Amino acid sequence: MNSNPNRTECRLLIVGAGPAGLTAAIYAARAGLKPVVLAGAAPGGQATESPEIENYPGVGRTDGYTLAARMLSSATEFGAEIVYETALKISLAEKTVKTESSEYVFRELILATGAAHRHLGIDGEDKFTGRGISYCATCDGGFYRGKNVAVVGGGDSALTEALYLSNIAESVTLIHRRDAYRASPVLVDRIKAQPKIRRLTGVITALGGNEKLQSVEVATIPSGIENLAVDALFVAIGGAPNTELVRGQLQLDEDGYIVTDALMRTDRDSVYAVGDVRNTPLRQIVTACADGAVAASQIVV
Amino acid sequence: MNSNPNRTECRLLIVGAGPAGLTAAIYAARAGLKPVVLAGAAPGGQATESPEIENYPGVGRTDGYTLAARMLSSATEFGAEIVYETALKISLAEKTVKTESSEYVFRELILATGAAHRHLGIDGEDKFTGRGISYCATCDGGFYRGKNVAVVGGGDSALTEALYLSNIAESVTLIHRRDAYRASPVLVDRIKAQPKIRRLTGVITALGGNEKLQSVEVATIPSGIENLAVDALFVAIGGAPNTELVRGQLQLDEDGYIVTDALMRTDRDSVYAVGDVRNTPLRQIVTACADGAVAASQIVV
Repeated sequence: MNSNPNRTECRLLIVGAGPAGLTAAIYAARAGLKPVVLAGAAPGGQATESPEIENYPGVGRTDGYTLAARMLSSATEFGAEIVYETALKISLAEKTVKTESSEYVFRELILATGAAHRHLGIDGEDKFTGRGISYCATCDGGFYRGKNVAVVGGGDSALTEALYLSNIAESVTLIHRRDAYRASPVLVDRIKAQPKIRRLTGVITALGGNEKLQSVEVATIPSGIENLAVDALFVAIGGAPNTELVRGQLQLDEDGYIVTDALMRTDRDSVYAVGDVRNTPLRQIVTACADGAVAASQIVV
Repeated sequence: MNSNPNRTECRLLIVGAGPAGLTAAIYAARAGLKPVVLAGAAPGGQATESPEIENYPGVGRTDGYTLAARMLSSATEFGAEIVYETALKISLAEKTVKTESSEYVFRELILATGAAHRHLGIDGEDKFTGRGISYCATCDGGFYRGKNVAVVGGGDSALTEALYLSNIAESVTLIHRRDAYRASPVLVDRIKAQPKIRRLTGVITALGGNEKLQSVEVATIPSGIENLAVDALFVAIGGAPNTELVRGQLQLDEDGYIVTDALMRTDRDSVYAVGDVRNTPLRQIVTACADGAVAASQIVV
């Protein structure tokens, strides 16, 4: 009995329409399923925030909006139903997802809700994002060959980004508010052994520049203010996976990402997680897409 | 002491220049390493055999040659050195790879040597490949919506392909030379429960058609000859990973694929495997590319 006119039964429901969700939709739709994709207000995910992409294989230079738009049109063409609604409540036990206007009942669910990068929260950060401020060295480091860059953060990801950038940039300043790093000892050793990396203890207090970021003001500890001329600042102070709707319903790792196996299965039957929201070793568009393809391929047989 | 003029020391050596190897090269080169890629006589790998691709995300309709060519040009642009030589001998213990003319000494190695599909070995098979004969339902099944197709094989992959195709095609005939399948019981149950799939015991003896495959002749057991009108035949009689140069030097799974973890590490230090040659859950261009990106990202820090 279906007494609610806004109740939709889906063989496969995909929550999120970034590269991971859209690729899952492409693979599932092309395999003859009619997946429903909850795309929120605007599809594309974090990819749409990348104005310049040069490492998505097989495409050359592009931007995230273009890539995502092409994925969306392929998914639609193959028969995926894209719904511009936002998931507000997910019950894995009842197998339902509620939006403002509807309720979806799924047989299988792919969570592709993505993650956000934690921001510094200082003036100019938004303005300079994509103009010197980046949240991903693997994505944007390549644009700063031979330049002077800084990394802020003190965990594994900050140290990894600093090491990554030391292969590319002229100089790397690693800014952290404490002397000690909360990172694995092997990374700390490598940081200390890399002459290109300067370690600075302090807190970023201001960002300078006109069109592009040109400098970073650091309140150094204990002494005073240091003005650092930089072409880029990589913010690596943590990620924030979008898991609030499923917290307590499936296994998350210590950083809050959904734990999956190599087939993208979570610890709940019929529930998969793909892309940035899962405990993946690398958060790139191409790895998110691969996750989506793998999850869909598990479901279609 | 380097007495051999044809001895090259590499920080990172990549063997194979299909999508996996080339994406590893793109990511490693963009990170400031100067990877050397042994591309054999012609780069691109199995991808170049796909004349029509519509599920590589973000690109729309394309072909494998075009995709691979763009990956090659990105890799070169970022500073990868593409060498058109074929690996003849690999010593993981000595960290060397020999070609006809040179010897490469590596610090880190990415194996991206790919895999081949086993062929039926009957007349017309080559001629009809890409014209009705396919070795990958996930790749090509989408082209046969509402058509009549056959699958030959009796293992997990054949049954998976038949189930996959039953969502898309009008009818699926699963041809196997024995009554029993060497597949997991759950797949066998699903095959038997799917009314669209007809099971036929026999051996394919001939292929018919002019420009495209139109029929398959099957010597049925025990009775006689059956002529099956089909638009496509999916050959799923096993894969053959290109591992002959490393056999005995690292862990392979029971089908001969290189065993890796989620970071693409093999059981040998500094040796990674990516793409079709490893024990991956899905063999698609996008998953091969993701593997390459993950492996390179492990190496660059």
